[in-house]
Amino acid sequence: MQALKIMKQFMEPQSVALVGVSRYTGEEAFNILENLLSYGYRGKIYPINPSVSEILGVKTYSSVAEVADDIDLAVIATPRALVPQLVKECADSNIKAIEIVAQGFLDASDEEGKQLQKEVDNIAKASQARILGPNTFGTANAFVNFSSTFIKIKMKKRPIGIICQTGAFFVGFSEMAFIGKGIDLANGCDISFPEGLEYFENDSETKVVALHIEGMQDTKAFVDMSRDIARKKPILALKTGQSQQAAKAVQSHTGSVTGRKEVWQAAFKQAGVIQASDLEELIDLVRTFSVLPLMKKSKIGIATISGALGVMAIDASQNFDIGIDALSPKTQKLLSMMAPSWLKVSNPVDIWPIMIESQPVVKPLIDGLEALLADQNLGAVLFIGAAFDEKWGTGLCQLLSELAIAHQDKPLICSIYGPSAGQAIKEMQDAGKVVGFPTPERAIKALARLNEYSRLRSGL
Amino acid sequence: MQALKIMKQFMEPQSVALVGVSRYTGEEAFNILENLLSYGYRGKIYPINPSVSEILGVKTYSSVAEVADDIDLAVIATPRALVPQLVKECADSNIKAIEIVAQGFLDASDEEGKQLQKEVDNIAKASQARILGPNTFGTANAFVNFSSTFIKIKMKKRPIGIICQTGAFFVGFSEMAFIGKGIDLANGCDISFPEGLEYFENDSETKVVALHIEGMQDTKAFVDMSRDIARKKPILALKTGQSQQAAKAVQSHTGSVTGRKEVWQAAFKQAGVIQASDLEELIDLVRTFSVLPLMKKSKIGIATISGALGVMAIDASQNFDIGIDALSPKTQKLLSMMAPSWLKVSNPVDIWPIMIESQPVVKPLIDGLEALLADQNLGAVLFIGAAFDEKWGTGLCQLLSELAIAHQDKPLICSIYGPSAGQAIKEMQDAGKVVGFPTPERAIKALARLNEYSRLRSGL
Repeated sequence: MQALKIMKQFMEPQSVALVGVSRYTGEEAFNILENLLSYGYRGKIYPINPSVSEILGVKTYSSVAEVADDIDLAVIATPRALVPQLVKECADSNIKAIEIVAQGFLDASDEEGKQLQKEVDNIAKASQARILGPNTFGTANAFVNFSSTFIKIKMKKRPIGIICQTGAFFVGFSEMAFIGKGIDLANGCDISFPEGLEYFENDSETKVVALHIEGMQDTKAFVDMSRDIARKKPILALKTGQSQQAAKAVQSHTGSVTGRKEVWQAAFKQAGVIQASDLEELIDLVRTFSVLPLMKKSKIGIATISGALGVMAIDASQNFDIGIDALSPKTQKLLSMMAPSWLKVSNPVDIWPIMIESQPVVKPLIDGLEALLADQNLGAVLFIGAAFDEKWGTGLCQLLSELAIAHQDKPLICSIYGPSAGQAIKEMQDAGKVVGFPTPERAIKALARLNEYSRLRSGL
Repeated sequence: MQALKIMKQFMEPQSVALVGVSRYTGEEAFNILENLLSYGYRGKIYPINPSVSEILGVKTYSSVAEVADDIDLAVIATPRALVPQLVKECADSNIKAIEIVAQGFLDASDEEGKQLQKEVDNIAKASQARILGPNTFGTANAFVNFSSTFIKIKMKKRPIGIICQTGAFFVGFSEMAFIGKGIDLANGCDISFPEGLEYFENDSETKVVALHIEGMQDTKAFVDMSRDIARKKPILALKTGQSQQAAKAVQSHTGSVTGRKEVWQAAFKQAGVIQASDLEELIDLVRTFSVLPLMKKSKIGIATISGALGVMAIDASQNFDIGIDALSPKTQKLLSMMAPSWLKVSNPVDIWPIMIESQPVVKPLIDGLEALLADQNLGAVLFIGAAFDEKWGTGLCQLLSELAIAHQDKPLICSIYGPSAGQAIKEMQDAGKVVGFPTPERAIKALARLNEYSRLRSGL
């Protein structure tokens, strides 16, 4: 319980001391205070800088000792040599949650780095303070408009919790803000995956937990915890550093021990953690699992405006082991009645020849998707379509979101090509009902993993 | 030579008859004439429609026989039952290049489709006319502002020639206009891959040839031709329909015979054709090969602002078999002089700790990339960076493009994350000097294939 309480101070601080914050602001100043003010954080902020009396209109203090109120979290952003003394001051002021932003500890190649780390360890051990980092981007929480990052990030109240060993996940990928809540363990000298997992297990705002793992000390504790949590919330993991050469690079990044690839694969499998094969898949899975419901059946139905991309979906279904079977006679009949006589309706359903003979063209698309979504034998529906321009893209997003709302228990996923595909996919993600991908293969791959997890949860 | 001459009529027509063009225009009319006028095509246009005297201000004709001038290309866009008669009229008017847009021939499930195809075949055989399609999106050529597609597409004068069996490639992917020149073979009843390859082999505006293959009749002729061309221009191919189930879907899409996966792999290898594993990789390779020079050495150098993404790049290099070795002593020394003392400079170069201590922060980035680009042992350079906002994205694009111009013989590729990554990647592609990807794995994969092809061309 003590660890969970301190994790809440890291994630939902009501007061934060910014130790060593600079008087310089604006571009290239990377000023944590300036960023924090821009998010609209409502907690108390205590900038610690002995050289000035205020920064950006906020009163500064010469040290944390000078602050009379309780401080939930201290963020230390100074050159590394000053860090041990400042950690000591924080611990002496009874601050329990401390982030160290500086680099050059276990990630450094010199002896001084190791020595500094030892000093920090000893201070933490002697007090009850917990350390996040060093070399950390800190924590972020869109639900309270808080982040301790020195780069200004975009957050969004998404039900996604990320535990990572790099700030890149805070900065984001694919032009979408992923950070609902994030913890950058970085070097992970103290706070590590178990503490992060415990926080997200107990956090009602988080539905999906994503992990970026370079290495950790206690994999057994991790597997044991994950096994329990994965039965309640999906855990999606990317394990990097899969070769000797990569292990060396990890050493100078976070100083972690990487472990063997096969051991990790077995551990994830045992724990029920869904392992992503690369960064792109992790992002795809986070997007998918945070929006779509679980699959109640394993087979999927596909409607496509491009026969060629339907063929690609079938190819992918074979590679990622998810079934595209014949449609039920009822669905088959319903769709055949709409189609031109020469068109043999099968799965994938070639919907374009039906659309092109209709006014408006989207009517058969809606009816066709309705038929697939209503089919009790299908566990999910994939639509392959195009955003020919912005208007088409927005129209598709609306149409698909409405269908998804009417069929909340069945995942509706899509693959969108065309000049406005990226915009349409982003709009869908923001609407939060349907998930879109730029190619059918990626949509199929994501569905295959959703199916895998759905089977785990249903005990099959 | 005769075939090449006719292919030029398909691709660079000086006059085109639009047979069966509708009087209806605007959204959902899918009017070929309306699209063609919007591109700024400078050739002669003869709309054929017996019911009206003009469409969009262009004089119509009741049949091709009524047109006194020579017609390079006829595009037949009517219901399928009318097609044989109209093909006959075109052939009788000495039109040598004919596109059939209608569906429902060998792609249909009924006997009528087969019968209609037989009639078309017989008419073509009896004349010297060549047929593209049926079920085709037609041809497109950004260099003469021509396209016969019924969906308005975006073209750009890129040195990319695409031969495909679906119009999806004309509509485009990843929000980028790919079509320099395109041929949609669709059913491929007559004009097929050999004719397309011959055209692009002889076309000086095309530097890269991309293929989307569902199936074809004469694979031996294809391999023989490809082997010659691939020594002059890269041929990038996606072969779809890789299972029995997919083969069935192909049957009702283009009516092609798919062939066995392993046979195709061997054929591509023998021919020196670079095979993409899925749609995303084909797009990535087209983007890469159309912009970057060949690699003169096999090893790559990496500079990264994220240690974690550097580790992912190493993981990918092991999966896709491309080497990231130690830097040369000279480069090592140059970079070490810039770095903080605790930072061990290796490959990937962790550039962020160097940047963060400099004003302006990009100075060490430019110097670092310069050092890598100048290193004679490196065949290509990968930069892993972030577009924190639009300004950063545009700045990165300029900075990298300038470096690439100064080092024209060495591929510079990058992996960009962050909120404005997509925009930055698109700007880079448009600038045409550097290629960007959203993840390090995709950049590494593309470099590995560029290396493979570079070795083929250098005879190693």
